Amino acid sequence: MAQGKLYGIGVGPGDPELVTIKALRLLREVPAIFAPCKAAGEPSLASRIVCQLDGTLGAKITNLVFPMSDDEAELDDAWQAAARAVAGKLDDGIDCAFIAEGDPFLFGSFIYLFEKLAADSGRRIEVIPGVSSITAAPARAGIPLVRGDERLAIVPAPSDRESIRRVLTDFESVVFMKINPVFDTLVGVLEEMALLDRATVVVKATTTEERVIRRLADLKGRKPGYFSIMLVRRER
Amino acid sequence: MAQGKLYGIGVGPGDPELVTIKALRLLREVPAIFAPCKAAGEPSLASRIVCQLDGTLGAKITNLVFPMSDDEAELDDAWQAAARAVAGKLDDGIDCAFIAEGDPFLFGSFIYLFEKLAADSGRRIEVIPGVSSITAAPARAGIPLVRGDERLAIVPAPSDRESIRRVLTDFESVVFMKINPVFDTLVGVLEEMALLDRATVVVKATTTEERVIRRLADLKGRKPGYFSIMLVRRER
Repeated sequence: MAQGKLYGIGVGPGDPELVTIKALRLLREVPAIFAPCKAAGEPSLASRIVCQLDGTLGAKITNLVFPMSDDEAELDDAWQAAARAVAGKLDDGIDCAFIAEGDPFLFGSFIYLFEKLAADSGRRIEVIPGVSSITAAPARAGIPLVRGDERLAIVPAPSDRESIRRVLTDFESVVFMKINPVFDTLVGVLEEMALLDRATVVVKATTTEERVIRRLADLKGRKPGYFSIMLVRRER
Repeated sequence: MAQGKLYGIGVGPGDPELVTIKALRLLREVPAIFAPCKAAGEPSLASRIVCQLDGTLGAKITNLVFPMSDDEAELDDAWQAAARAVAGKLDDGIDCAFIAEGDPFLFGSFIYLFEKLAADSGRRIEVIPGVSSITAAPARAGIPLVRGDERLAIVPAPSDRESIRRVLTDFESVVFMKINPVFDTLVGVLEEMALLDRATVVVKATTTEERVIRRLADLKGRKPGYFSIMLVRRER
């Protein structure tokens, strides 16, 4: 029997209308859809996005747990289990989709599944790119990201001041991810570099819970939440 | 009379199916669509994408010239002319779309128009993010861009060896744009750093002319063409 094909599908940053026409067509065509969640029984954001678009898709979605953990062995166990679940369907000749918020290859949990499955030669895997929060956040904030010969860095916010300073010096635009653990340090360096008014935090871009925070001084001491990114555009 | 609203709409990297549902809905709703082209009479790639999706859209598209030039005064004249054309419609109360390949705020010509028009307070402008070739190229090449705590740089390829070396040292993943003018230098540095087999060139990702070039040594001395980007993923 022929192997099924796996589609890794980006479903965009949150607004169901930011799903692509191709993603919606494939989600309707495949018999089985897998969605990542952080723990058993937790809702999947990717699943919520596609179900808002087409409620009939829910019936064929299976959640796979991709835990938030620093324990390499625990993570690897979870990715192996996810890969086995998907491989089982593919081996039965069933085409499958794995849905990822944003883009599958830009900080997507799909990457772990892809790396496990692509190691088996003969697997048919196609990746369908999606709208990333990296561009959705600037769109919602009305802040152009890069133009002409400008340079863009997309980095988990570093914990040391020197690395923050260096990336802000080397690049006209910087997108900081995972800003919560180092938020006060980040704001401190921005103040020293007179860049605080060039920084904007966007929380859950394009969702119903979206917030755009332009006066970071107001936030100092509090944290903007997990799904936040900070844009710093040095020159305009 | 109320001002019209301007939508800056990303229409994706080339495959008409990678247009979002929101983009298609808005393009059908607005009475007037503007599309960028490089010279009067030249075809617009953004226009081609949306017309392949819905042939009836062509009748309401007007091309605006955004020249490829190093002459600041010439560029500014062109952007002013484009802004006047769009502002004229908006002032007549007509909602307009400006379509941009990829994402409007990630190296998009829409940025120049946005900066001119947003300077007038009271303009209603909404930016609709799109799938960028920055994520479409890795999707097509089957190369994850960044995961976990990795860092990504998106830069016009520098002309000096030291800057190339530095960005490849500081970042796990680098996307080089505008690679043609410095292609041999770039390949030379990649060879020195033993990264040549980690580099992939993608030409016109997701279009019918797409090419994925995994053996860059084969290309040396030739150029991969204007709409090419190079992905270098240092660690896997």
